[in-house]
Amino acid sequence: MTFSLKQTHLNETHDPSLKSWVESANSSDSDFPIQNLPFGVFHKGGNGESARIGIAIGDQILDLKNCIKLGLFDHLPEPLKDACTATRLNSLMALGSEPVSLLRSAVSQLLRLDVEQSPPEADVLVAMTDAELRLPAEIGDYTDFYASIFHATNVGKLFRPDNPLLPNYKYVPIAYHGRASSIVPSGMPIRRPQGQRKPPDASIPEFAPARMLDYELEVGCFVGTGNAIGQPIAIDQAEQHIFGLCLVNDWSARDLQAWEYQPLGPFLAKNFATTISPWIVTLEALAPFRCPAFQRSNDDPQPLPYLHSETDQRSGGFEITLEVWLRTEQMQSDGVAPVRLSQGSFSQMYWTIAQMLTHHASNGCNLRSGDLLASGTVSNANPGSQGCLLELTQRGTQLITLPAGETRAFLADGDEIILRGFCQREGYTRIGFGECRAIVQPSA
Amino acid sequence: MTFSLKQTHLNETHDPSLKSWVESANSSDSDFPIQNLPFGVFHKGGNGESARIGIAIGDQILDLKNCIKLGLFDHLPEPLKDACTATRLNSLMALGSEPVSLLRSAVSQLLRLDVEQSPPEADVLVAMTDAELRLPAEIGDYTDFYASIFHATNVGKLFRPDNPLLPNYKYVPIAYHGRASSIVPSGMPIRRPQGQRKPPDASIPEFAPARMLDYELEVGCFVGTGNAIGQPIAIDQAEQHIFGLCLVNDWSARDLQAWEYQPLGPFLAKNFATTISPWIVTLEALAPFRCPAFQRSNDDPQPLPYLHSETDQRSGGFEITLEVWLRTEQMQSDGVAPVRLSQGSFSQMYWTIAQMLTHHASNGCNLRSGDLLASGTVSNANPGSQGCLLELTQRGTQLITLPAGETRAFLADGDEIILRGFCQREGYTRIGFGECRAIVQPSA
Repeated sequence: MTFSLKQTHLNETHDPSLKSWVESANSSDSDFPIQNLPFGVFHKGGNGESARIGIAIGDQILDLKNCIKLGLFDHLPEPLKDACTATRLNSLMALGSEPVSLLRSAVSQLLRLDVEQSPPEADVLVAMTDAELRLPAEIGDYTDFYASIFHATNVGKLFRPDNPLLPNYKYVPIAYHGRASSIVPSGMPIRRPQGQRKPPDASIPEFAPARMLDYELEVGCFVGTGNAIGQPIAIDQAEQHIFGLCLVNDWSARDLQAWEYQPLGPFLAKNFATTISPWIVTLEALAPFRCPAFQRSNDDPQPLPYLHSETDQRSGGFEITLEVWLRTEQMQSDGVAPVRLSQGSFSQMYWTIAQMLTHHASNGCNLRSGDLLASGTVSNANPGSQGCLLELTQRGTQLITLPAGETRAFLADGDEIILRGFCQREGYTRIGFGECRAIVQPSA
Repeated sequence: MTFSLKQTHLNETHDPSLKSWVESANSSDSDFPIQNLPFGVFHKGGNGESARIGIAIGDQILDLKNCIKLGLFDHLPEPLKDACTATRLNSLMALGSEPVSLLRSAVSQLLRLDVEQSPPEADVLVAMTDAELRLPAEIGDYTDFYASIFHATNVGKLFRPDNPLLPNYKYVPIAYHGRASSIVPSGMPIRRPQGQRKPPDASIPEFAPARMLDYELEVGCFVGTGNAIGQPIAIDQAEQHIFGLCLVNDWSARDLQAWEYQPLGPFLAKNFATTISPWIVTLEALAPFRCPAFQRSNDDPQPLPYLHSETDQRSGGFEITLEVWLRTEQMQSDGVAPVRLSQGSFSQMYWTIAQMLTHHASNGCNLRSGDLLASGTVSNANPGSQGCLLELTQRGTQLITLPAGETRAFLADGDEIILRGFCQREGYTRIGFGECRAIVQPSA
């Protein structure tokens, strides 16, 4: 078992003394300082131009295609430059972590404030306010895990009071396949789904708009290089197959879910929409914020050998602070800022991302570049850290009172949900994930 | 409620007196007479040429790109001709049923034995034995239903003896999302998966090759035109969104499934591979073989209004005979023909394909051209009609004895499973689906 330098090595791109000539990137509350450099896909709109790959820096986007055209990255290998001019990130993801690291290093060089170098004269930046952010990749398959033991236990109590945590949970990184077609970028409104619901006192179900509409705060993981069908991925190789992380809101209609989910799992309760944040933060950028895997109690079983690695146990976790904010239609019209519903940490997941990915491929299932794995709802043990209303309101029985006196059991039409995530640690520059937001629209 | 002519109208392409100048198509046991004309994608191999769209006729494939190049379809609209020269069927599927009907009619004209017309002199055919058949479409999402009440009840008895058919079954067309990446064309070997299994007498699970490897006989349905996110599809419009049907083998590892499937449904027990037959039989070709929807008993609830249509109740079913054949490695080396394990009819499904599709989109979930919906295992009420070993062998407790004395509880390495499907009715020409076959290879 070797300690993987690539996963945890800090290089010059993490240097907290680095500043950028893009001044907004140097603000202490910017999600996108020069130490972050997350990837996304944007569109300037209007003039028939196609989507482009960009890197967020402060309140600007570095236009990679323009950089290539201007010869700013002439020293980079040809396949890497080709991948940068695509309209989606899939080709870049497929190249693997080393070329991406090379690219981030070149971008860091280009953007840094440096006495020996002036910023390029040509305009390589697009203001975020002038751009529309798209899905970063063609997502072939979307898999949703269930990796928070606190979430699994809380939800289990509500659906199966006598049997909250099933016997397989501590052995199997439980997951199901979600819907790829309905993954949408941050900002696109979500329509409240209709569906079958059967109230406990009804004798037959009705088809009607969902009344228990919920969000789920999750972290998403984009696959970089894939694996061939029939070829598992060893746990020590797993992180080599990961391009980076984003935020995911796995919208859920709890009344539909309760009626439909047995025996084959959630389907229409989830697949009407999934919102993702547009910027993918690379594992390289997250290197200063790694932490140990979940500390299992002595009563808990150790992971089976195929899910166990010393490196992963030591540094397979991520210290990411995750928050959910709500702004109702009333608050919007009153000009009131969103209110925070919860705050938790991604470090408390029972399974690491490497374990999820290795488990996924352990039967020979092929993962493809651009596939999305999501963590499942992130909840911690402490009150106020639960990543969905189902838990926060105890299935709607304990209302949340908002500052202006409004209450919520589940989401109302016009509600806007905003997910935020960021990493900070003494001695390092804070990096953020940007926002994952959407407004709920009434049923069709 | 109008009776849809398009769905059930018989046109000149169904005329049983039609013969083709491709002689093999006129044999009474051919799956691909001129009345069928199913679509697929093939590759001639070798010379750097890309994949092409073809139509099966007897033991030959009509090369549509070549037909277009030779000007044989000059009278067809430009977008239709463009779609015919693609490397996958998605663009053709997106055009909807009328252009496809126009194309089938033109192909029927071209291929028919006619005193007033000679076959084209140029070579527009490729022998099936010279071609490699590929996946017909880029499959964005794959959804697997559970539409046979006989299968659901039989499996329910094995997994939940006290509670075989759950209360939602007769209201909800139950389904889950499957894995798109691991759908492979007929002929590609399947590797036995490894995974977690927990024998009843063991205290902890083990990670090992699956011992209870099974097939599932299903019918697949390719989406033609899709729907926008948030826009449901009315039951009377559902068949307008269907391109055609194929055969599906939803390989399943029962020991992995039993341990992992709660609470979110099957995952690694299914997603290691799904085999589909390469030819998509259009709904137009199937028009003579339509039948009423499942006849519910007086005790059964009627479908909720969003799943109910007079037309669908009257003719939403399909009379397709479905068979599973097995050839063991021993039989292969002895030169013995495959043995039939089961025979059933697709007419006995509790939910129609239109109901499945409408239910799928009822919450606003967007379906895309090329998406695959599968029916779930097709089992009828009578013995010998069950579409998987789990049912046929009562979870491995009642061994099947093969002609040469070999026995099977579940699949052994080297076993080849062959699915076949065909339609026949007095007064019409028999049409077939071809084969869906694969050999089981040992674990990696």
